[in-house]
Amino acid sequence: MTDVVDLDEKFALFSELWSPKLVSRLNDYEVKVVRLRGEFVWHTHEDTDELFLVIEGRLTIQLRDRDVVLGPGQLFVVPRGVEHCPRADEEVRALLLEPAGVVNTGDAGGDLTAHVEEI
Amino acid sequence: MTDVVDLDEKFALFSELWSPKLVSRLNDYEVKVVRLRGEFVWHTHEDTDELFLVIEGRLTIQLRDRDVVLGPGQLFVVPRGVEHCPRADEEVRALLLEPAGVVNTGDAGGDLTAHVEEI
Repeated sequence: MTDVVDLDEKFALFSELWSPKLVSRLNDYEVKVVRLRGEFVWHTHEDTDELFLVIEGRLTIQLRDRDVVLGPGQLFVVPRGVEHCPRADEEVRALLLEPAGVVNTGDAGGDLTAHVEEI
Repeated sequence: MTDVVDLDEKFALFSELWSPKLVSRLNDYEVKVVRLRGEFVWHTHEDTDELFLVIEGRLTIQLRDRDVVLGPGQLFVVPRGVEHCPRADEEVRALLLEPAGVVNTGDAGGDLTAHVEEI
């Protein structure tokens, strides 16, 4: 985990959607990559902010009062406690950054809840 | 600070080298962008890891036992306590991620110590 992480190489290792993969650690934070397509579930992380950086594609992060649209090279931090629902009409590759142990579906749970695998 | 951050737009706002600019916050961490060219100073952050993600150019992070070379889309986490010295033969644009308050020159101090401005 202390070597160079090539994001393209990491994305080539998996094809599952909505299943973040751990690629590096920064203190007690995790750097994850994720492929997104379709609509996720509305959920909230009560205890932490969550950073999305889009690497490829166009991601809409729906908030209750507006949509945030991100393209490659754009990032957004969803503040803690703010309900959100990512949506991608075409496949998106994104980098996620948040404290270790954050569950992708937050308070919502359900079938899309992912076990984070290290790649 | 809760809006979309476009990295290219942020880089267009400054030209100084070795002077990280704050573009977003994630809990008590800071997301910074920095332009690098030439050689920095050898230094250590005793209390924290430090993440470098290269956006443009080719960055060498010299460690005492090896060089780590990063191109666009590649990231590396310098572990806490590991002495390092970034070097860039041509200008590099990079994203930095680390806890708020980390000083760019770590334990070394000196003229290259930057006050982090928010842009």
